[in-house]
Amino acid sequence: MVDWRSSLLRDLGGWAKARGLTVDWASFADEWRAGYQPAMEPVRQGAVPFRSLDLLHREILERLLAKYGIAGISEADKDYINRVWHRLDPWPDAVRGLWRLKQRYIVGTLSNGNVALLVNMAKYAALPWDVVLCAELARTYKPVPAVYDLAPNLLGLPPQAVVMVAAHAGDLVAAAKAGMRTAYVDRPLEFGPGKEPHEATAGFDFVARDFVHLAELLGT
Amino acid sequence: MVDWRSSLLRDLGGWAKARGLTVDWASFADEWRAGYQPAMEPVRQGAVPFRSLDLLHREILERLLAKYGIAGISEADKDYINRVWHRLDPWPDAVRGLWRLKQRYIVGTLSNGNVALLVNMAKYAALPWDVVLCAELARTYKPVPAVYDLAPNLLGLPPQAVVMVAAHAGDLVAAAKAGMRTAYVDRPLEFGPGKEPHEATAGFDFVARDFVHLAELLGT
Repeated sequence: MVDWRSSLLRDLGGWAKARGLTVDWASFADEWRAGYQPAMEPVRQGAVPFRSLDLLHREILERLLAKYGIAGISEADKDYINRVWHRLDPWPDAVRGLWRLKQRYIVGTLSNGNVALLVNMAKYAALPWDVVLCAELARTYKPVPAVYDLAPNLLGLPPQAVVMVAAHAGDLVAAAKAGMRTAYVDRPLEFGPGKEPHEATAGFDFVARDFVHLAELLGT
Repeated sequence: MVDWRSSLLRDLGGWAKARGLTVDWASFADEWRAGYQPAMEPVRQGAVPFRSLDLLHREILERLLAKYGIAGISEADKDYINRVWHRLDPWPDAVRGLWRLKQRYIVGTLSNGNVALLVNMAKYAALPWDVVLCAELARTYKPVPAVYDLAPNLLGLPPQAVVMVAAHAGDLVAAAKAGMRTAYVDRPLEFGPGKEPHEATAGFDFVARDFVHLAELLGT
């Protein structure tokens, strides 16, 4: 739904510029994003109690601030930086596609982001979700099946009446195992120019260029 | 937010008329609504596992169908009747008031209704909630404090930054105990003409005639 990488570069670039700091935000953003999968792993394995993505982001952030030599900043600044994940710009098609889908379907999240992160993101980016479902409600992280099961269970629907939409094939493979249908939305620039992922999309129920295309494929 | 009583009478009246049935839907609706508090009580006390409001409604419905002599109807008909709680009309001010509040605040539910009931209600009545929070997520029912605690905990806010809005004083008293601020919205016709509740509203932070008035009081 959101172009997290460009958003981080723009937002944190502005923050640093106002303070006369020079930081390689592209590397910083990539490392921050890369730290998120390993940070979730002990929670998935039940080795530690559940902690929200906001908290995991903050733990990774502390390490990166040290690594990139950003020292002596206030708690308010750290909180501002950490909440950049609440201030992400939507991809150009996301809002329009959701509004079209929403006319006929329930549209909602099923994200590893926590409720506050997703609700603030929706307000910031004007994403008109009908419901915010996420890992936090299952107290574990995708791809643990309990997270996927939230959607049919809480919506009172059979799993095959729910379509998981994602830009990552692994997310859809796990959703299919939980009985859901699957829609892949291509985001070639998610990880920046020249880093287009090449994911196998055979076997998914829908493969869309963007959310407006997905809305067309789903008859809205 | 919704005029449940008029909605039930209209919807179930239409259902019965199409089948040539005569039912005192006003009494039926009042008994159904009155059955909901005692049905939640064993869940609140931890005497039985959590069951959703849809399931509690269904259990009460079975008793009322027998009591009112509505016999031999199909499972699909029972399900249709039970889901009348997903098809409730908004009060005339509700949609407009929410849109105003939503420009500045996160607007969400904190209801004893389950997620599916509330999401379907929102789609039916065009209620533009940003987030659907409810008793089902705490696996118990209001006024148990754990349900109120969901709102600040999941939104990442201090309790005093959250305003509980309700037409029932008891709901607000419990919210205040959980540290939330309180807004009473008057719904004199909720229980039908001639049955205006007289609730003490002293001590609440806001007392509004309707949701448009509440939006005004909250500066939107």
